[in-house]
Amino acid sequence: MTSAVYAVILAGGSGSRFWPASRRARPKQLQSLGPGDGTLIEQAVQRMRPFCDGEHIVIATGEHLVEATRRVLPNLPAAAFLAEPRARNTAPCIGWATEYIARRDEEAIVVVLPSDQYVARPESFRGAMARAIEAARAGAVVTLGITPTRPETGYGYLHAGDLVAEGVMRLKDFREKPDEQTARSYVASGEYFWNAGIFVFQAGLMLDHFAACLPDTHAGLMTIREAAANGARAERAAVARFFDEVEPISIDFGVMEAIGRKGLVNMVAADVGWSDLGSFQTAWELASKDGEGNALVGDVLTTASHDNLVLDSSDDGSVIALVGVDDLVVVKTKDALLIARRQSCQDVKAIVEKLETIGRKELL
Amino acid sequence: MTSAVYAVILAGGSGSRFWPASRRARPKQLQSLGPGDGTLIEQAVQRMRPFCDGEHIVIATGEHLVEATRRVLPNLPAAAFLAEPRARNTAPCIGWATEYIARRDEEAIVVVLPSDQYVARPESFRGAMARAIEAARAGAVVTLGITPTRPETGYGYLHAGDLVAEGVMRLKDFREKPDEQTARSYVASGEYFWNAGIFVFQAGLMLDHFAACLPDTHAGLMTIREAAANGARAERAAVARFFDEVEPISIDFGVMEAIGRKGLVNMVAADVGWSDLGSFQTAWELASKDGEGNALVGDVLTTASHDNLVLDSSDDGSVIALVGVDDLVVVKTKDALLIARRQSCQDVKAIVEKLETIGRKELL
Repeated sequence: MTSAVYAVILAGGSGSRFWPASRRARPKQLQSLGPGDGTLIEQAVQRMRPFCDGEHIVIATGEHLVEATRRVLPNLPAAAFLAEPRARNTAPCIGWATEYIARRDEEAIVVVLPSDQYVARPESFRGAMARAIEAARAGAVVTLGITPTRPETGYGYLHAGDLVAEGVMRLKDFREKPDEQTARSYVASGEYFWNAGIFVFQAGLMLDHFAACLPDTHAGLMTIREAAANGARAERAAVARFFDEVEPISIDFGVMEAIGRKGLVNMVAADVGWSDLGSFQTAWELASKDGEGNALVGDVLTTASHDNLVLDSSDDGSVIALVGVDDLVVVKTKDALLIARRQSCQDVKAIVEKLETIGRKELL
Repeated sequence: MTSAVYAVILAGGSGSRFWPASRRARPKQLQSLGPGDGTLIEQAVQRMRPFCDGEHIVIATGEHLVEATRRVLPNLPAAAFLAEPRARNTAPCIGWATEYIARRDEEAIVVVLPSDQYVARPESFRGAMARAIEAARAGAVVTLGITPTRPETGYGYLHAGDLVAEGVMRLKDFREKPDEQTARSYVASGEYFWNAGIFVFQAGLMLDHFAACLPDTHAGLMTIREAAANGARAERAAVARFFDEVEPISIDFGVMEAIGRKGLVNMVAADVGWSDLGSFQTAWELASKDGEGNALVGDVLTTASHDNLVLDSSDDGSVIALVGVDDLVVVKTKDALLIARRQSCQDVKAIVEKLETIGRKELL
């Protein structure tokens, strides 16, 4: 019998880039921002369904988000939700989830994936994921490399080397976000792929890598394991202590790059219509639009207006009319209205900071 | 004893240019659109207070607007409100109001003025109005000529001739809306003034002019007078019949231009900071603004945004955030949100027409 597949879906996040659609209490993954059906986290769960049943899905989220996240995923059991007591970047969280799974099944295959991405071609994703799981069963740590469609400077890149099996390459190198010229040469070469933060590995093997690369973190994880033997209450206390004391570091810096340099990481190329849905700009690009380039959700009328994104989730029976405006992002919720130039939507964070400064915490 | 002064304040209007702030049931004059205190119609009444007491103020409005208008002017008696059964342009309405006043006092001086204008310098207005009333008492029909401040192509002009008394000129001619070059020459000459639709005359004299210029209309008015002798019910029926049958024509075309050609109209120049508040563009121009040129009413935050007009009357506790946008008009009410390019705000009518076409009458 082959080992079971677990999905660890990373669902933290502060949500300031999609304010006011996303909020501290309802970050991006709990929103229906892309063209897909349902919230982004539901889509992530759905994407992994062909590989793992409900008991093998783990949602790693923040304590303040557990309730809202459970409401969106009512079919998952309570045990599926791992609540981080504090955000400590990805290595502690993935380490914790991996230890949690390894305790049940050392041989389990763990798929780590973000909860807030969009995949246009799920059937292609299934193919790439099946291949990655197979490679992980063969003993590699595997990362999915997204086939780049443009010289994007906002992502890290994976430099792929020799083919080691059908569709599986040895990973040569992780590369930081490049400048534009470098990004162009990456895309032209065909050897570089986007790092989407999707990893596949055997649970016990990854714990060994933690022991080698982040020994203090690994020791903390073993303390949790020992405490767990004394019951749920002791386990909770150990988890709290672990997150208090652990070094906050990403899985990329803390583990993947180190083992990648030793030739221990493989990459599966994934041409799956992937998007990180990183901004309203991306949401507009992905959305289906009318003949004037307007992507409209809600009761919206337009005249002489082009290339706008309107998202009305206020559900207040109100109409929105656009007259002679282009390239805007309009987001209306029950308690806030954002009107931004589409090309300036990275500055939405400035408004979130302003709200924080002036003490309007109810709007964050 | 000098004859009494009556103010006839014209308060009809459909309000499509200020949608969604103004609505069929709450047109522009019932809104607080300019920088002044209170609604525009309250300001119009206030402007005439130095000349006439409450019983001498007549509000000529549509039947569907009487209730809303009375709520805004609770201190005026019920008899102050003349409700037109149907809109028939200005001549029938002014004729009716004039007959209504003349029946009480043939010698009364009648001041006709729109209800939806803004005057920045009320004390200058008082001076010009006092002069116009004096000229009307001397037997002329008088029109106020607004000293132009720019070569506006959206207004009709008054061509002033010889001085006939201090500050009073013989009116040479009414001129239609000019093209830009003509407008420039008008302003440069110093002989042309904006026609603001403000007229002053003796009631009985104006009825004589109606008899000469619009004999059918005059006959209808006399029918109302005879019916009124038989009680309020007969009067109401006669008024309804009058508005059913009367020729819809403006006072300018129907009376003023004809008597102007005979040299019977005088003009008093009024340099009073007048504005017709004809569009959101004008409202923005008049409004007080922050250092970035934004005129903001409501709970509004801005970043990297300039020269916007935001009017939030929704009173729903919601915040509005502008990010990187310029030259917008944003109007939020309980049931509608308009986002328009400031320079396109004359196209707001297109949205109103669209709402009508698709049967969204609740939003008109």
